[in-house]
Amino acid sequence: MTTVDEHAAHIAGLVGLGSARPPVDVGLDDALGRVTSVAVLSPVDLPLFRNSQMDGFAVRSADLPGTLPIAGEVSARPSDPPALRPGTAVRIMTGAVVPEGADAVVPVEDTVVTDGLVAIERVRRPGEYVRDRGSDVHAGDELLPAGLRLASRHLAALAAAGITTVSVRAGIRVAIITTGSELVEPGAAPVLGQVFDSNGTALAAAVRAAGATVASRVHVGDDTTAMLRALTDAAAHADLILTSGGISMGDYEVVRETLEPLGARVGTVAMQPGGPQATAVFEGVPVVCFPGNPVSTQVSFEVFVAPLLRKAAGLPPARRETRTLVAALSSPPGKRQFLRGRAVGASEAALVAGPSSHLVAGLAASDLLVIVPEDVTALAAGDNVEVLHL
Amino acid sequence: MTTVDEHAAHIAGLVGLGSARPPVDVGLDDALGRVTSVAVLSPVDLPLFRNSQMDGFAVRSADLPGTLPIAGEVSARPSDPPALRPGTAVRIMTGAVVPEGADAVVPVEDTVVTDGLVAIERVRRPGEYVRDRGSDVHAGDELLPAGLRLASRHLAALAAAGITTVSVRAGIRVAIITTGSELVEPGAAPVLGQVFDSNGTALAAAVRAAGATVASRVHVGDDTTAMLRALTDAAAHADLILTSGGISMGDYEVVRETLEPLGARVGTVAMQPGGPQATAVFEGVPVVCFPGNPVSTQVSFEVFVAPLLRKAAGLPPARRETRTLVAALSSPPGKRQFLRGRAVGASEAALVAGPSSHLVAGLAASDLLVIVPEDVTALAAGDNVEVLHL
Repeated sequence: MTTVDEHAAHIAGLVGLGSARPPVDVGLDDALGRVTSVAVLSPVDLPLFRNSQMDGFAVRSADLPGTLPIAGEVSARPSDPPALRPGTAVRIMTGAVVPEGADAVVPVEDTVVTDGLVAIERVRRPGEYVRDRGSDVHAGDELLPAGLRLASRHLAALAAAGITTVSVRAGIRVAIITTGSELVEPGAAPVLGQVFDSNGTALAAAVRAAGATVASRVHVGDDTTAMLRALTDAAAHADLILTSGGISMGDYEVVRETLEPLGARVGTVAMQPGGPQATAVFEGVPVVCFPGNPVSTQVSFEVFVAPLLRKAAGLPPARRETRTLVAALSSPPGKRQFLRGRAVGASEAALVAGPSSHLVAGLAASDLLVIVPEDVTALAAGDNVEVLHL
Repeated sequence: MTTVDEHAAHIAGLVGLGSARPPVDVGLDDALGRVTSVAVLSPVDLPLFRNSQMDGFAVRSADLPGTLPIAGEVSARPSDPPALRPGTAVRIMTGAVVPEGADAVVPVEDTVVTDGLVAIERVRRPGEYVRDRGSDVHAGDELLPAGLRLASRHLAALAAAGITTVSVRAGIRVAIITTGSELVEPGAAPVLGQVFDSNGTALAAAVRAAGATVASRVHVGDDTTAMLRALTDAAAHADLILTSGGISMGDYEVVRETLEPLGARVGTVAMQPGGPQATAVFEGVPVVCFPGNPVSTQVSFEVFVAPLLRKAAGLPPARRETRTLVAALSSPPGKRQFLRGRAVGASEAALVAGPSSHLVAGLAASDLLVIVPEDVTALAAGDNVEVLHL
């Protein structure tokens, strides 16, 4: 049996997500959450021009204190104001161009205006309430680093610098193939022995939640010809193929039967749920194969694939922390357990539903996985456990 | 002057987001991240039928231990198997229907098969390795609660129960109006005095990041007729209107001039950046007006609107925590400061750029806001401060 850590490392090495495809340019409105492929340098000084921080009067600081004639006005509307004549003041709005010759702005609330004159009582520092050109960033300076997941404030900085597109990492395209002749689509009327396919829905949503895109999603029955065709289709347009079902030791194991002759690595990982696991490379595209039980599929995705997709998308890893158990539990030896649980208050965790891998409603009722190490067979109430938040 | 907390409470009362519009039904593939409007009851028992947890043999536990003739096979393919005859075993696959008469499954690895007989050495509990119909959830039971933000595991549970659509809260539709004749679109060639409009980009992305949708986004110059038209258009299709610029005491204040005669509340909030703030109700739609400086707009959105949108979308509030300052700072009295900063290690925070509201690149370089209370004018290195993560 392979350990969880060995299998995770094997998949991480196999997948090498996003390394092959070139970055893409996207418009700012499509860039939220994307990851910069290279550093972005500012093409301009910001501010673009020397401007006023306040509504008030542009002055020469050397003329203060004093009462100065008001020689005109500069609004925030585009303008190229004449230079300030020494010994005069001009009325100025926030954001407006500070005229040549002026070196300070006096806020209107610090002035007294009468008959075309403005009285200013105290001395002003040169530069006071003046935003110098380039005081935020200079042309050629790094505006955003490479590898940054773009949030609104980053897009705002790009827009402020007049930039309309940004080079981002190509999104990871994931193809999903669920297998098993017993599966029917939700909405169909199942006959005895049929179950609704929840893995397609679960994996598609989980892939998107991890910052990747769903390139395609199909279901195939227990038919190796159909499986081979689905894999061929998927490999043509995906960076990663995920499958569910068909890899254990039963008699109808379509994923194993299709991929094992092509060199797939099929085995058992020392974990519950999710023991049977496989990987392959199909026409150059990595294939990660999960067992078909819904809880096994979902937990396997969170443990082995979600961390890689999240990293490629610039998302932080799912939160892991230590909590204390509200009740005792026992655990089979030799396998790492990922038990369904809920956070209780700030520091405790309780188990939800049972350990069986068919309890899909139980998983939906949980908000974390309680991780019990391979060598632990019993824990008491109050013991520390590691949890992985869902 | 209004306090930050008063203004936040006023906006929360004004906005009442999402209370008016009826919920909508969406397909599971469009439901990720949406919030359930009502509890979802399961229409079926899960599992749908009694099935095997293992590959092995279905037996009567009363017949064990013993060597039993193998009377047939049940695969995981749809089937309605004949009842088990007492004293026999049938080969069974994981997930397959457990025949009437059988009350346990013995895993294949615990058996020895020879010549059509299966030898089973030890006693089995009734029910062992059998998944009872309804053992996960019963028809009529609550599958998901109301008010739940749908993640992949919830969608999986819906799919497993055969459900194809889910009733979710109507998304909040936000209209964005940026103002100011000095603004030009990124990509244009500004003349002296013009600046690129970053607030439209910033607010659109911030609205989406907070779980709402951008209903429309326009820019209007300093023209009250155009502003009135933009407000009328926005009110026709939005639940909330956000504006930037045009609300301070200068001579060209298009938002104030348009909305004040209609009863807008225009004033100053004791905060930096973001002092000038206004609210209004236009044709029944709440309008929240931010000052035009890019940092003021973005900080105002995070402080006053993002918490409401996030709550309506079922997202957790942005993380607030206490950190210690790496360096001393001074702060003007009487106003709450939202200084741009960065997390340093697990517990410290450093300031980034300066406090001025035009430093849009400085905000992009920050990952949190350091909050300095109104009555604090100086803090030393090592002092605790509250931070709001961006």
